[in-house]
Amino acid sequence: MAAPQQKLTNPKRLLADLHKLRSFGSVGNGVVRPALTPIDVESRHWLVERMREAGLDAQIDGIGNVFGRDQRAAHTLLLGSHTDTQPEGGWLDGSMGVIYALEVARALRESGRFSERGVDIASWVDEEMRFANFLGSRTFAGLLEPTDAYPIVGRDGVALEHALRQASLIGRPVARLDPKRHIGYLEAHIEQGGILEASNNRLGVVTAIVGIRSLEIEFSGQQNHAGTTPMHLRRDAGTALLKFWAALEERLRPVVSPGSVWTVGRVVLHPGAESIVPGKASLLLQLRDVDSDVLARMELAATTLGSEVAATTRAEVAIRPTLRNAVPAKMNPRFQQALAEAAQLLAPGHWMTMPSGAGHDAQVFSPLMPTGMLFVPSIGGISHSFDEDTREEDIALGCEVFTTAICSLLDSLP
Amino acid sequence: MAAPQQKLTNPKRLLADLHKLRSFGSVGNGVVRPALTPIDVESRHWLVERMREAGLDAQIDGIGNVFGRDQRAAHTLLLGSHTDTQPEGGWLDGSMGVIYALEVARALRESGRFSERGVDIASWVDEEMRFANFLGSRTFAGLLEPTDAYPIVGRDGVALEHALRQASLIGRPVARLDPKRHIGYLEAHIEQGGILEASNNRLGVVTAIVGIRSLEIEFSGQQNHAGTTPMHLRRDAGTALLKFWAALEERLRPVVSPGSVWTVGRVVLHPGAESIVPGKASLLLQLRDVDSDVLARMELAATTLGSEVAATTRAEVAIRPTLRNAVPAKMNPRFQQALAEAAQLLAPGHWMTMPSGAGHDAQVFSPLMPTGMLFVPSIGGISHSFDEDTREEDIALGCEVFTTAICSLLDSLP
Repeated sequence: MAAPQQKLTNPKRLLADLHKLRSFGSVGNGVVRPALTPIDVESRHWLVERMREAGLDAQIDGIGNVFGRDQRAAHTLLLGSHTDTQPEGGWLDGSMGVIYALEVARALRESGRFSERGVDIASWVDEEMRFANFLGSRTFAGLLEPTDAYPIVGRDGVALEHALRQASLIGRPVARLDPKRHIGYLEAHIEQGGILEASNNRLGVVTAIVGIRSLEIEFSGQQNHAGTTPMHLRRDAGTALLKFWAALEERLRPVVSPGSVWTVGRVVLHPGAESIVPGKASLLLQLRDVDSDVLARMELAATTLGSEVAATTRAEVAIRPTLRNAVPAKMNPRFQQALAEAAQLLAPGHWMTMPSGAGHDAQVFSPLMPTGMLFVPSIGGISHSFDEDTREEDIALGCEVFTTAICSLLDSLP
Repeated sequence: MAAPQQKLTNPKRLLADLHKLRSFGSVGNGVVRPALTPIDVESRHWLVERMREAGLDAQIDGIGNVFGRDQRAAHTLLLGSHTDTQPEGGWLDGSMGVIYALEVARALRESGRFSERGVDIASWVDEEMRFANFLGSRTFAGLLEPTDAYPIVGRDGVALEHALRQASLIGRPVARLDPKRHIGYLEAHIEQGGILEASNNRLGVVTAIVGIRSLEIEFSGQQNHAGTTPMHLRRDAGTALLKFWAALEERLRPVVSPGSVWTVGRVVLHPGAESIVPGKASLLLQLRDVDSDVLARMELAATTLGSEVAATTRAEVAIRPTLRNAVPAKMNPRFQQALAEAAQLLAPGHWMTMPSGAGHDAQVFSPLMPTGMLFVPSIGGISHSFDEDTREEDIALGCEVFTTAICSLLDSLP
């Protein structure tokens, strides 16, 4: 058993900052702070001040990212997550990772151990897709130009350009990834699922972020009067959809991995009236796995089944991919190892490796540089909800593990 | 083979009136003339004039029914249908039966055969449920008081009282069923299905109008993130709904009659998002049969299955009847016989008996007096659509058969 260590981080300060951030847009136990709304912009100004107090050169950039740069260091690990929320979000989703990054910066400075190497930290704007998925991290990574993004209209009908202008951010320079400076990316996040809790683990070292493929599968038959059309004369699009849906699991089972998930999240029968035999019927099928090959096999199984159902019923089928750009993202083995060693040191036997079923800004960076992620448990596995929460001991432990791993990487990276 | 007969009806006059009525609210091949809209009221005034020309004492009453009374007769058969349309309706649905009734009245008067006995004819307002199902026929039958119906708000947000006031009909007396005077009810209608066409028949003698039962079946599970919730931890309400829907046919088959129909017209997964495991899932199931016992067995099979699915999954189920007042309506055997004899005389071998899968005003009257219905074919089985149509020869033949049957009944009824 390892001897008790001097702590690197300050849990009281960490929790105080998390609760202060929660106060911007708090509603009950939750938070309403979608990206670039007035309350979100206000919280970004607060965050800039906290970063400056931590000795960083910090500002909000021209897309809304809050970026804090360690001016003393020539090479840095990039740390970040997001502080924007779902329309009805929890207080930790994203925010915890940003305040961890802030605490790491403070802890490193206080430790006096690093000078040439350090951390740059960020709150990436709009991870929760008010305007576009990974707007901030993609801009930082150079995958998106602000001016190209200006016309994007958010789900509430507001254009990004208008929101940036209202926030007095339009025209500001944007911070960018610097391959010579940034030697890796790390992000901490709540799990948002129930795997850690169910297995009595307190930390999850992420192995990969799942890729997502979504298909809209629409069957067309003949719309008819539900009273005057006998069963044998019907070409009911809903019946074809049912045949597809009912056979889906047995077609996917042979090709999936143990961690694969698939979800039928929406079904629409048209015109959707009690007395009308549906002429069209569509469902939205989402497939997730950490392995591109598995994803491809799942998609093939689903599309093959769709065609077979169309051939054996009197319906036609149209299959449209609705999301193809979320490819699986493998985490760097060296980064996984550093996180695992820190977890084993501070919570021996109470950590595990696991994939991330949800998407994170880390997947934007993983093709560009070594990337790692650390999870802490979500109580009841609940997220994207006002009820989202994590035990304070787990929040504090996660930050200490995260910081320990970062010190190890800063020490050992070439 | 019977010798060619002198025709009772005048097909040219019949078709001219049908085309004139079509001109009120015509859009392309279809008609937009919902009950008590200005164009519908205009058409009712036109109809009153045509009835008066036919020698009837006619007016629009205080609920919007157009009623034409044969003042010479002490006992009458009541003939009718409706001239209001669906929001996007066909030109013959209802209208054909009303103009048939007008032509019968003219034909009887011209034949000079009846004096003590005759026909009263009507266009029942709002069969298509802008405000309430069978508003006009139920009022005439004494099942509904106009003042009780005034507060009903139509599907377009207009109150019935307002619509009647706009039409200057409010406060007028209403015509009522007179059990001493009215010896039976007859209605002709387009089939609205494809059975006659598919069997190469030109006339359908209706045996019964189906009863309808509708159930909303809702499963409740646990709403969750579709990425972070493994398959084995899910309580997916959609999966429970699928299990119900997939097993429904094999549960209904043993209890249905050959003419039973069942329709899943709507499915809703809540919240209906691609990345969320549904927490609620509901479907709308409609059951139709001419036999109350069969309907009851179908409903029992469906509700039993719903409970079984809830018991074998981790979902809860709630089952709500949404429509219970549409009971099956048997047509009178003597009236069926008169219509069948007329059909066999004028179209030997090209008629059939059949149930009506759709609802009609006749079902309001069938518990109150002997009732009969005659169908003519719908091209392609299409109805409730601008494309609804019937061949002119079939329209003319149907009217002659209808009139022949009515003469036979007026001759023979006690």
